[in-house]
Amino acid sequence: MSQKRIKKVQKAISEWGVDAFIVTDPVDLFYLTDVQMSLGTIVITKQKATLVVDNRYLEKCQQEASCPAVQLKPGVVASLLSKSKRIGFSQESTSYSQFSSLAAEVEGELVPLEYPMQKIRAVKEASEVRQIKRAIELCYQGFEFVKSRLTPGVTEELIAKQLQLFWLALGGEALSFDSIIAFGKNASMPHYRAASTALKPGDIVLVDIGVVVDGYASDMTRCFFFGKPDKRLEKIYDIVLDAQVKSIKAVKPAISCAKLYEVSKKVIDKAGYGDKYLHGLGHGIGLETHEYPTLRPTATKSMLEPGMCITVEPGIYLPNLGGVRIEDMILVTKDGHENLTSGYPKEKLIISP
Amino acid sequence: MSQKRIKKVQKAISEWGVDAFIVTDPVDLFYLTDVQMSLGTIVITKQKATLVVDNRYLEKCQQEASCPAVQLKPGVVASLLSKSKRIGFSQESTSYSQFSSLAAEVEGELVPLEYPMQKIRAVKEASEVRQIKRAIELCYQGFEFVKSRLTPGVTEELIAKQLQLFWLALGGEALSFDSIIAFGKNASMPHYRAASTALKPGDIVLVDIGVVVDGYASDMTRCFFFGKPDKRLEKIYDIVLDAQVKSIKAVKPAISCAKLYEVSKKVIDKAGYGDKYLHGLGHGIGLETHEYPTLRPTATKSMLEPGMCITVEPGIYLPNLGGVRIEDMILVTKDGHENLTSGYPKEKLIISP
Repeated sequence: MSQKRIKKVQKAISEWGVDAFIVTDPVDLFYLTDVQMSLGTIVITKQKATLVVDNRYLEKCQQEASCPAVQLKPGVVASLLSKSKRIGFSQESTSYSQFSSLAAEVEGELVPLEYPMQKIRAVKEASEVRQIKRAIELCYQGFEFVKSRLTPGVTEELIAKQLQLFWLALGGEALSFDSIIAFGKNASMPHYRAASTALKPGDIVLVDIGVVVDGYASDMTRCFFFGKPDKRLEKIYDIVLDAQVKSIKAVKPAISCAKLYEVSKKVIDKAGYGDKYLHGLGHGIGLETHEYPTLRPTATKSMLEPGMCITVEPGIYLPNLGGVRIEDMILVTKDGHENLTSGYPKEKLIISP
Repeated sequence: MSQKRIKKVQKAISEWGVDAFIVTDPVDLFYLTDVQMSLGTIVITKQKATLVVDNRYLEKCQQEASCPAVQLKPGVVASLLSKSKRIGFSQESTSYSQFSSLAAEVEGELVPLEYPMQKIRAVKEASEVRQIKRAIELCYQGFEFVKSRLTPGVTEELIAKQLQLFWLALGGEALSFDSIIAFGKNASMPHYRAASTALKPGDIVLVDIGVVVDGYASDMTRCFFFGKPDKRLEKIYDIVLDAQVKSIKAVKPAISCAKLYEVSKKVIDKAGYGDKYLHGLGHGIGLETHEYPTLRPTATKSMLEPGMCITVEPGIYLPNLGGVRIEDMILVTKDGHENLTSGYPKEKLIISP
């Protein structure tokens, strides 16, 4: 598996106009070697790939990693790069101090590249899509669990904690992110975290949750009305759903992320809520919850490609009243798209208190 | 609380020889504002501090953050820095791309600083030590739990999963790191992760675990003998324990991290296992499991200070046989140190299969 992935990088090296490429991001290291490590460097040239790790990981990597592993010693990385004139690195996942150290060590020119590994990881392999689907199945069960716990007086944080235990007991590895369970006016804050607010009839319930299964993340949002809906929230629910459905319909290869965002923005603008749509339309998802690409107005050069897995999640937020966001996970296919989370309904749902 | 912390940064700004300082690391943002966010910037000058966040976090930060929050728009950060000639940033937590964007935006000189916020966070406040002690109490319970689960045939990963559920149910927020539960020869890999190996009589059991409570991490290691100990492992147990106890005794203000490492190295060298001690002596711990300082031979300039909380965890690893590591959490005090994890025994323990 990972040898195939290293070949992908070697192919990209030519396209990037460099002779070699350095990988240091822990998620990238895992993607390319199949071994979890917090620190390490892969030096990839067109001909070979070498993993450089310290003693803590050496034995494990020599047994399990998909490329030869050598011990980290002063000068090792530089000597592996001695014939490389142009050495690429990820400008997003390389710190200023890592860059400075490298610059002092290697002779070749260091070339910053924009999301190089992220762009490779964005296009999922069939096996990765299968893993993502498993994480989604468990996510569905999480939504059923949350719905079953909605009773007057229950707090956001109690449900969030119970959900975490529920998921882990069923084989989830970790939360994709801190669960967002927001009651009533708390739903007006897009990145609210579950806290001590108690549920009361008339509240909207915004649930943005996800779980990691075997390394891959899920991420979905649904909103429920707990008792009689507020008319304004009911109205924005319809608008957000309309924007979300239209955006999903537009997902296909070669559309830019900015253009896709515009599809959602146009619907929300037309309804008069443009200034209450506080974030981008969505993001790539896979080994990390937030991956390349980002579906925002400035991403005019990011194009969707078959195999990309993205979230589509427009929202409208009304301070002191509440908010609505609806989020699905969408796979870009050769012909258009597949809604990976179509199995979970998103029609307006009123839950009786 | 956090206003006091911003004052600490403002005091440090003068010492760092800069006019302003930029904070972007999410843990630093939380430390200084009391609000969790994945993205944001605090611009701190000697006179004031301003949090710049996008729309997703704006309402929440304006309600809850310890300093004024303004909306992220092009040019906002630059305008807050318009009068600053020398602008400090953390070279470890600023990516090359963040640095490039800043350099293009601001007029002043960008000055890379070595672990600036990490050095401030390293010295814990009394309330932080209390939180760490709570995380340690729950860690103790985890060790009792793991010991109670050691029966022939049980797998490392089953215990690890059960431990995670046990901790979360008792109020733990998350694991400090993926639990290391290693049976027999797996213990020879310092950063092993629990896998499918089943426990058998005669195995050594290395348990390196920790749990986060209200934001603060615990991290401890103990090794148990499951049945009759292998003589060589018994021998290295005594050596590691000796090295660990002597290192802890040496913990006091103004000793360098390198010197402290040397205390442990000397004991292990003398016993003839110097080449089997594969890592540093320990690390700072707090909001993150691995913080400044790092107790390694090259850290000649990192000095311990009262209030620092560090791990002390020497180890010896024998490939294909097993390994021993013993780890406590130590608070540096004015007079010397306090072993925060002294409540959990570390004498050799043989558990009957």
